[in-house]
Amino acid sequence: MKEKSFWLWYPGDFERYHALKQNFSRVERGFGWPAFWKSEGFRQRVVFRRGYTLQRDTVFTVFAVQGAVGYVLLDETKHPLGAAVSCPAGEHRIAVHLGCIGCVPSIYVQGESIRSDAGWTAEDFDAPPVAAAFNRYFTDPSRDPSDWAYSEQVFLPEKEEAVNGGVLFSFETELTAALEVKGEGLPTVYLGESRAEALDTARCYFFCTPDEKTRRCPRQALRYAFLPGCQPGDYAVRAIHQFVDIPVRAAFSCDDEELNRIFSVAAHTFSLCSGAFLLDGVKRDKWIWGGDAYQSLFVNRYLTADREIEKRTLLALSPGEPVTTHVNTIVDYSLLWILSIEAYYDSYADGDFLRFIRPRMESLMALCLSQREEHGFLIGRKQDWVFIDWAEFDRDGPLCAEQLLLSEALRVMVRFADGSDRAFYEKTRRELTEQIERFFWDEERGAYIDSFSSGKRHVTRHAAILAILFSLADEKRSRRLAESVLLSDAVPAITTPYFRFFELEALCRLGYFDKVLEEIKRTWGGMLRLGAVTFWEEFDPGKPLERQLEMYGDPYGKSLCHAWAASPIYLLARYFVGLRPLSPGGGRYELKPQTRFFRSLDCRFPMGDRLLHIVFEDGKLNTEETNLS
Amino acid sequence: MKEKSFWLWYPGDFERYHALKQNFSRVERGFGWPAFWKSEGFRQRVVFRRGYTLQRDTVFTVFAVQGAVGYVLLDETKHPLGAAVSCPAGEHRIAVHLGCIGCVPSIYVQGESIRSDAGWTAEDFDAPPVAAAFNRYFTDPSRDPSDWAYSEQVFLPEKEEAVNGGVLFSFETELTAALEVKGEGLPTVYLGESRAEALDTARCYFFCTPDEKTRRCPRQALRYAFLPGCQPGDYAVRAIHQFVDIPVRAAFSCDDEELNRIFSVAAHTFSLCSGAFLLDGVKRDKWIWGGDAYQSLFVNRYLTADREIEKRTLLALSPGEPVTTHVNTIVDYSLLWILSIEAYYDSYADGDFLRFIRPRMESLMALCLSQREEHGFLIGRKQDWVFIDWAEFDRDGPLCAEQLLLSEALRVMVRFADGSDRAFYEKTRRELTEQIERFFWDEERGAYIDSFSSGKRHVTRHAAILAILFSLADEKRSRRLAESVLLSDAVPAITTPYFRFFELEALCRLGYFDKVLEEIKRTWGGMLRLGAVTFWEEFDPGKPLERQLEMYGDPYGKSLCHAWAASPIYLLARYFVGLRPLSPGGGRYELKPQTRFFRSLDCRFPMGDRLLHIVFEDGKLNTEETNLS
Repeated sequence: MKEKSFWLWYPGDFERYHALKQNFSRVERGFGWPAFWKSEGFRQRVVFRRGYTLQRDTVFTVFAVQGAVGYVLLDETKHPLGAAVSCPAGEHRIAVHLGCIGCVPSIYVQGESIRSDAGWTAEDFDAPPVAAAFNRYFTDPSRDPSDWAYSEQVFLPEKEEAVNGGVLFSFETELTAALEVKGEGLPTVYLGESRAEALDTARCYFFCTPDEKTRRCPRQALRYAFLPGCQPGDYAVRAIHQFVDIPVRAAFSCDDEELNRIFSVAAHTFSLCSGAFLLDGVKRDKWIWGGDAYQSLFVNRYLTADREIEKRTLLALSPGEPVTTHVNTIVDYSLLWILSIEAYYDSYADGDFLRFIRPRMESLMALCLSQREEHGFLIGRKQDWVFIDWAEFDRDGPLCAEQLLLSEALRVMVRFADGSDRAFYEKTRRELTEQIERFFWDEERGAYIDSFSSGKRHVTRHAAILAILFSLADEKRSRRLAESVLLSDAVPAITTPYFRFFELEALCRLGYFDKVLEEIKRTWGGMLRLGAVTFWEEFDPGKPLERQLEMYGDPYGKSLCHAWAASPIYLLARYFVGLRPLSPGGGRYELKPQTRFFRSLDCRFPMGDRLLHIVFEDGKLNTEETNLS
Repeated sequence: MKEKSFWLWYPGDFERYHALKQNFSRVERGFGWPAFWKSEGFRQRVVFRRGYTLQRDTVFTVFAVQGAVGYVLLDETKHPLGAAVSCPAGEHRIAVHLGCIGCVPSIYVQGESIRSDAGWTAEDFDAPPVAAAFNRYFTDPSRDPSDWAYSEQVFLPEKEEAVNGGVLFSFETELTAALEVKGEGLPTVYLGESRAEALDTARCYFFCTPDEKTRRCPRQALRYAFLPGCQPGDYAVRAIHQFVDIPVRAAFSCDDEELNRIFSVAAHTFSLCSGAFLLDGVKRDKWIWGGDAYQSLFVNRYLTADREIEKRTLLALSPGEPVTTHVNTIVDYSLLWILSIEAYYDSYADGDFLRFIRPRMESLMALCLSQREEHGFLIGRKQDWVFIDWAEFDRDGPLCAEQLLLSEALRVMVRFADGSDRAFYEKTRRELTEQIERFFWDEERGAYIDSFSSGKRHVTRHAAILAILFSLADEKRSRRLAESVLLSDAVPAITTPYFRFFELEALCRLGYFDKVLEEIKRTWGGMLRLGAVTFWEEFDPGKPLERQLEMYGDPYGKSLCHAWAASPIYLLARYFVGLRPLSPGGGRYELKPQTRFFRSLDCRFPMGDRLLHIVFEDGKLNTEETNLS
């Protein structure tokens, strides 16, 4: 078997570079909308090194990413990049020096014995050498890491219809595609996730003209394409769907066809939102958000178990030194990023990554702890965003939910502490917990209040949900919180699907499965009944059909393919099939299906590096394990 | 008069970006040689803001640097880049959001009332807003800051001769030029600073083929161009000299024609080495070195008084946060960078820049102070380079010269301290000075020893030179150092022109003008006698002619146009004409010519923002001042 070469780079910098590209890729109505947080650049000057002991003479060639300058140093002699270098048998040291301003410095070494694979180190003239990084998508010398190497699949429109003096092309589902338009001239193309949007040429998000040479439009989310001022037959249109090939490992089949369909559309939705990174949505924002990513980790664990996209996302979000700003500027997203590291570790037991990322966790936690006020509570600085959720919190002084997140993040710091810091994090957490109890717990009402400083003692659901999820409330208090908050109509309902994810999970934790199932069918089943082929950013079953596309005051503002809407995958797998890892990497796991909801089940879910085939039939549960290749 | 617009950027980032380009521009024999120190990247995401109160309706257009994405926000409405935006009379807030990965995010605002000039702020989603930066070279919307906007001047060869089966084109002097080659096909062109190098096609540094469209070769240092395998008349060759237009303000004329010629060739040499930054040389390294830059500041103060190139250079060298590495990896260059800030301030009294750069000085000094051993002496870490000079130091333990530099840098920190730090720096310096005296001063020999730990008590000239220059030795000890070290044949001679600069200045300080003048005539006069049109990186009058081109073991390794070789400008102006600022910016200055060396003098030198015309004739000294425009 011919051994592979990979493109190599400094660990983390590939992710930084592509995160910049990703976060700068949002386009709306003719203008670019780069994400509004601090950019974290990549190293422009790197050296890659490796030693070889060769049994025989060999030849190798080093290719560099476009725009790079540098040289190959074989022992003491310099050679140009891109030229074959002869290397006699014996002991040798190879160094490749690279400078590149516009993209991440990377090399590809082609040769029989001397190749770019595991075993090279990278240096940045600052830190000690580290193992050079690579991934499975960049193994072709002609496709360097300056652009993401998408897989492609051609889709023909399922329908072509004359309408509004032009032609509307419809595809069977939503795609992230470069539309190819063959015919006379370069027509303007109007794209839409919905038919209404594509036809609304004045207000749709994307319009473009195909490139003269390739006849392709830029890669965009689309299901519909409208070409005004033409007739059927004038143009031949195909969609070149460009995606990152991440195999779906999960399958869910039960005797309830609606649930099966919900799972399958959720899986499709999530796959579309899984590109170079775990994205919020494919039309909008196309940004890497720490809160969205945290939830996606739980879905991805059960759907693909592809640890690489998770690592890329966590690295893309990870702050650079000195850590002075929060993840996406949001204080709670910094805390969720710390929780995300734990979620990742529990899925894959990847100790190398944990060791690599721990210094960033410590720096980010240090920033958070530096922002405590006199009672020890975390508050935002002027430039920070204390988000938690789009909800009417009493935001006077420290916010309760933020403290619960801090407490949970401190638990993670304790768990992953490297030694001497453990006692510090333990003590800090203990003190914080006591202060939360003292200032935010309202024993009379059986609830946490948002703010202790305003005197209003306002209650929202968020703190209750987090206290239950993080086991900060014990069994007894959790029950009380459910009754006095979660099941109380007096407390305003959660309105965002983002926090709805947490709320439904909290209800599952407390065993309210009927309620959760009812909600899944009402919301996700509701979207299906309206013809959804992917799940939406938000869905209010009570809203009239013609207003389902609007959001943020924009007639087409709503994303119709949004990662967090894939939560039924997690809820079904984790709580209804009842599968969860008991040890990091899932070496030990628990399987406790809620069998009263199913006559039959035939599911496959990954668990670390294995695939479980779970069959429930005639009251009997059978499990088979195979290794994931 | 029509008001100008400028390209705007985040302060310091233009310099970081172009420093990367500069430090990655070295090419030798077909391979790129990027500088081997930590890259300091630029912000990829910036927002520019300004408020206007308009008397009447107006229109403006925002252009962005190539590759940037973003939008214009007028009050609450987004507009695309590159399109005219109408703005009615009244109060308005404008923001331009920009993301750019490959080069420094920059904007150009064109309009009658709304323009990009002083008054805009820049933000990076981290620090508070700062004044957006710009410079006089970027005022044309069609020439954005992704490439340096060089001025051009066409040079025709002064000679075209058939030789070695080809044609050699010679220019009157060295240039940094894009060679234009018109004729059949795309011949390979061999370039040289010397005739010998251009003709040595196997070993010359640069060879290239002209671009098919423009017929131009890449910009390179050259005086000679050889085209093998052709005859006179086959090709028409011109050199498009590309330079940064920095007017030379100084003129030096005396009754000694040799000195006049030395000054003039030094000025030409220095101008060639003054590009986007103060460079070491034009053929090699083309890097921004902190030690070379420090010396260049003293030359530039008297030659052009262009503060902009000095600021660009100091910013290009300035470390990014967190400060973990030294300037060019060299510990002493970090200290010289701190001294450079003082030299700049003394030249121009630029308090704004001082305030902007002071946090970087503090961080760099903090790094240096963190590297002290048990006696309080600064030592290098494994990744550091303790350089001082190419000399045979006794490098066991702390090196004396390094401590003298630290002491001087601490003096600068005391001078520019912002308040509370002053006492700390004062105390640190006092303790260091005492320790230097205790461990390095050898009273018996009247010299500083290199190392106290080895027991060898080895003496080199460097510590003596620095102690004199920095007034760390008093008058009496300086005299002793001169006798026992500087004028002693027993102490190894300084071999590098770099430290020769300091040595000659130290001799001037002590009044050894005859010796210095003799040395200037021997070394710089010696180069002229060998036909030099620019001054060389190194010159040993005793070396045979055919070996004058070699250096670093390379037959053409020596740079024939090197900034530090322009030191006679400084020595003549500062010590022989005797002109020096007594207050920052030169509001007060001293003029004490060494008249015994001149029958007549007719000189012009800038002093801050004025130009002094100094005439000495018939024993009388006359001075006239005009304002520099």
